[in-house]
Amino acid sequence: MGELKQRGWGLIGASTIAAEHMVGAIRAQRGHDVVAVASSSAERAGAYAGRHAIAAAYDSVAALLADPAVDAVYISTTNELHHAQVLAAAAAGKHVLCEKPLALNLDDALAMVKACRDAGVVMATNHHLRNAATHRKMRELVQGGAIGKPLFARVFHAVYLPPHLQGWRLDKPGAGGGVLLDITVHDADTLRFILGAEPVEATGMSQTAGLAHEGLEDGVMAVLRFDNGVLAQLHDAFTVRHAGTGLEIHGELGSIVGRNVMTQRPVGEVLLRTGDGEVNVPVEHENLYVRGVAAFCAAIDGNGPPAATAEDGVRSLATALAVLEACRTAATARVARPAL
Amino acid sequence: MGELKQRGWGLIGASTIAAEHMVGAIRAQRGHDVVAVASSSAERAGAYAGRHAIAAAYDSVAALLADPAVDAVYISTTNELHHAQVLAAAAAGKHVLCEKPLALNLDDALAMVKACRDAGVVMATNHHLRNAATHRKMRELVQGGAIGKPLFARVFHAVYLPPHLQGWRLDKPGAGGGVLLDITVHDADTLRFILGAEPVEATGMSQTAGLAHEGLEDGVMAVLRFDNGVLAQLHDAFTVRHAGTGLEIHGELGSIVGRNVMTQRPVGEVLLRTGDGEVNVPVEHENLYVRGVAAFCAAIDGNGPPAATAEDGVRSLATALAVLEACRTAATARVARPAL
Repeated sequence: MGELKQRGWGLIGASTIAAEHMVGAIRAQRGHDVVAVASSSAERAGAYAGRHAIAAAYDSVAALLADPAVDAVYISTTNELHHAQVLAAAAAGKHVLCEKPLALNLDDALAMVKACRDAGVVMATNHHLRNAATHRKMRELVQGGAIGKPLFARVFHAVYLPPHLQGWRLDKPGAGGGVLLDITVHDADTLRFILGAEPVEATGMSQTAGLAHEGLEDGVMAVLRFDNGVLAQLHDAFTVRHAGTGLEIHGELGSIVGRNVMTQRPVGEVLLRTGDGEVNVPVEHENLYVRGVAAFCAAIDGNGPPAATAEDGVRSLATALAVLEACRTAATARVARPAL
Repeated sequence: MGELKQRGWGLIGASTIAAEHMVGAIRAQRGHDVVAVASSSAERAGAYAGRHAIAAAYDSVAALLADPAVDAVYISTTNELHHAQVLAAAAAGKHVLCEKPLALNLDDALAMVKACRDAGVVMATNHHLRNAATHRKMRELVQGGAIGKPLFARVFHAVYLPPHLQGWRLDKPGAGGGVLLDITVHDADTLRFILGAEPVEATGMSQTAGLAHEGLEDGVMAVLRFDNGVLAQLHDAFTVRHAGTGLEIHGELGSIVGRNVMTQRPVGEVLLRTGDGEVNVPVEHENLYVRGVAAFCAAIDGNGPPAATAEDGVRSLATALAVLEACRTAATARVARPAL
């Protein structure tokens, strides 16, 4: 074995998700460490750095990007900030793992992809769900023909937004709040991953049941048509406490039912129902974020693509934007498919 | 107790559903019997009468309606025939229990309602599902506040059309074939019953996966918005064998999950999930058709309305037609609400 290269990560955004999942996932990778954090509030950056034993705290992205100890950044600021931050990171030659949605519109997202490509840095989207053992198993079953030709999919992703996350998601349209940009992008990515197909059109209706404000939606039911003919229905919400989550694929010869699978935790089960009856398919659960960061780290070293590429992030955003357009115009919307 | 009135029923249509469910359900009512059957084929009528011990077999509706032993008719011909047959039955002074969809368009359905009203005969729609103990329990829970304000509903009614029913439903647009008029009407009626609310708009996408022909749909995923704000998603199909059926209502404080409940059989279970955990709510199953016919018989005697009125049949048809319009125009469609 060669000498292990030491890689330093900078966190752009002193966020809950970084604290709960990503700092640990990065530090679980051999040779990788979190060495810097930036927040617009110096006080918040400093406290966060102290809490997580991060060497450097910065009150600006520019300062963090100027730190030579930073090789890669994880961006988990509010969504309207991703665009400028990714461009700055690319210009500084840092690899980029960006939270979803990549941006608030496709033009910004495409500019981010291009900037990273031109700079020769890896850019990836932090869609965690395709790293789940459950979803990987469902993909393997579908693509292995276990249910014959897939005809329909259902995604149940209606949850109750935890109080500590009930900030901008509920009242900041300019920050990309609302259930569609927060949750629907995940459904889109997970379905693309499992089906190996692309959504082409979307329709749906949204709801504002009192949790969200300022014209934002806190619930949506949508239908997508994929380019392999599959119809998928989605139910995403911030407002229901006991619905549970799930993802199902129904085919000509059988059905796959994933229960409790739209979650950050390594849990859930996969059932396969065919003419032979129903079986609980064994899955070996593992930490979704550790797996995702591992693929990103390998990609930095030139070993394969990240789990969800920058392009995957563009596709999931395009899908969520189509659902949003359909809800707001009361007409079926095409899912944009820009050249990538 | 007064003297029991003897009531004779005529079957218009020597159908599978009459044989499998309705003849028995009528004969289970004290004082009621099936005394005549009409089919356009004299041979079929005769054989059917013999098989089910029905006294009279006719090769025309007119002949059956002229039989003084017939007090009420059960109509289960193909859908395009209902309109003229109900008008004829009303003119003959017979009470009418009609299969769904009542007709192929709202004008016809409204004319049927008016004809029966003017003739002073009872007209009802044979929506069996609202007679299920499971759906009655779910209605009781929702309307009793068990889950707080209801926000979302889901109906899973994707099945495999049994080979012996794979006739006109798959290739006769003129007979009202296709999954929407066959199944979506049931979803609409059941949701109206449980929610006590009216659908106001519909969107969706349909699919033809190879079972249906002649421009008919064999699968659909749709979204309805109700006048109480509830969004409902439907999945109806003729093409999947192992999806199971279900109906769920998700509210601010809890969820109700009905499993295996979109069926003609007295089966299925109802789960209630709230902050107190999940409980399996006891239901006392009973034959759906026997209960429905009992309410119809009581209505004939002036004792309350039928389980699903003629007006309920108009509403479910209006909803299915709105879904059909939405699928075909790729735009949200208003659910027509004619004065009744």
